[in-house]
Amino acid sequence: MPKYHDEIDAVLRALADPTRRAVVERLAKSPAVVSELAAPFSMALPSLMQHLRVLEDAGLVTSHKHGRVRTVTLRPGAFDILHLWLDEQRTPAERQADRLGIHLVRTEPKDS
Amino acid sequence: MPKYHDEIDAVLRALADPTRRAVVERLAKSPAVVSELAAPFSMALPSLMQHLRVLEDAGLVTSHKHGRVRTVTLRPGAFDILHLWLDEQRTPAERQADRLGIHLVRTEPKDS
Repeated sequence: MPKYHDEIDAVLRALADPTRRAVVERLAKSPAVVSELAAPFSMALPSLMQHLRVLEDAGLVTSHKHGRVRTVTLRPGAFDILHLWLDEQRTPAERQADRLGIHLVRTEPKDS
Repeated sequence: MPKYHDEIDAVLRALADPTRRAVVERLAKSPAVVSELAAPFSMALPSLMQHLRVLEDAGLVTSHKHGRVRTVTLRPGAFDILHLWLDEQRTPAERQADRLGIHLVRTEPKDS
């Protein structure tokens, strides 16, 4: 699955940078315009735009322009591929514990 | 929380490299000795050892030596901090969907 491997690679490379992570953390609260995203960082706008491009290429954010204002949004399901990869890395012991966990939820009294 | 930020930074930097990710994927199946981990990669042993050190520093793997043989193990709960971070990045809409999901599981007939 080369496509899957390329995608997970792009997502993890994008998230390995603390500035890009801070942008994602901000966008998880709500969409934001570029100037708003730039404000907390002492960074030239072109550098921020480059970070946004990496996030967009990794499928983590989308952006659209209204007049001169560009709004950036965290893509719904942005982290699905990372959740999938993490799920695949569960050890045999963790899979067993997970199955036990599911059993406990299903047999829990409904009014608790 | 500077410690948390350093930890998540170390984990994501460690996982952003495809060789280190392949090592993690192999270790998710079972612990392995270093020579076994090196086999699929056309890589000098010192380079592999350096990758293992990055994974170990990020808290993702542990290793111990018996005689001349070093065994590497994926640390239980290795990805807890990444799950925590991902959980924090859920958008308001996703949080609402998750609550609905929990409701559906709880009202599901037990014998289905």
